[in-house]
Amino acid sequence: MNTKQKGTTAERDLIHMLQDANWAAFRAAGSGSSRYPCPDIIAGNSMRKVAIEVKATKEKRKYFPKQEIEDLKTFAFQFGSEAWVGIKFQGKGWFFFSLEDLKETKGGFSIGLDDAQLKGFTFDELVKS
Amino acid sequence: MNTKQKGTTAERDLIHMLQDANWAAFRAAGSGSSRYPCPDIIAGNSMRKVAIEVKATKEKRKYFPKQEIEDLKTFAFQFGSEAWVGIKFQGKGWFFFSLEDLKETKGGFSIGLDDAQLKGFTFDELVKS
Repeated sequence: MNTKQKGTTAERDLIHMLQDANWAAFRAAGSGSSRYPCPDIIAGNSMRKVAIEVKATKEKRKYFPKQEIEDLKTFAFQFGSEAWVGIKFQGKGWFFFSLEDLKETKGGFSIGLDDAQLKGFTFDELVKS
Repeated sequence: MNTKQKGTTAERDLIHMLQDANWAAFRAAGSGSSRYPCPDIIAGNSMRKVAIEVKATKEKRKYFPKQEIEDLKTFAFQFGSEAWVGIKFQGKGWFFFSLEDLKETKGGFSIGLDDAQLKGFTFDELVKS
């Protein structure tokens, strides 16, 4: 699988996990290609709405272009939702991060598996927090 | 244009109208084809979230299969949003209806241009109500 396919599979998995947890969850059409930025996944229940940028990686650290995080922030502010980054680290599973927990790098942001224990939310923590 | 193309054009128009009114608005991917029902358009701002089933018609009355309205109701309840039907009547423009204002028919529901004046919301009324 190439990176794009891996991302799509991860998105689909996460949507099913959210739906199994009784959230409404869906992929936004035109995510990544629209004039108005749109995150990969949007989910909600009667109490909360979340916008999630989704990644799958074999590496121990994931990098984000600055624009991608800015777009997520902009969308979440306008839509009125929380903003999360969800990363499936191969062999380690899913971790979810608030944008303020991302580390600023020269060209953008990054988050690593070493940050997951301290700052990452597991899926159960995400949906129950 | 066939019915499906007309529907897609209407959806795109409505998304732009919502975005111009400073709402985040997008089409849900897999709308109409997913195991979990998903409406045509979802939009929100810091105060409100709306799920909209979108139609365009040349006729004076539009009919909805019962399942389509049930699916919209189910989604909106689970997602925690308002549920609306948005119809673009050719030559008359957009009207938006609450589900309780649809008329029950034998096989589902209907709403007509004759209902629009009394029960329909214009676009401005929808985004400002």
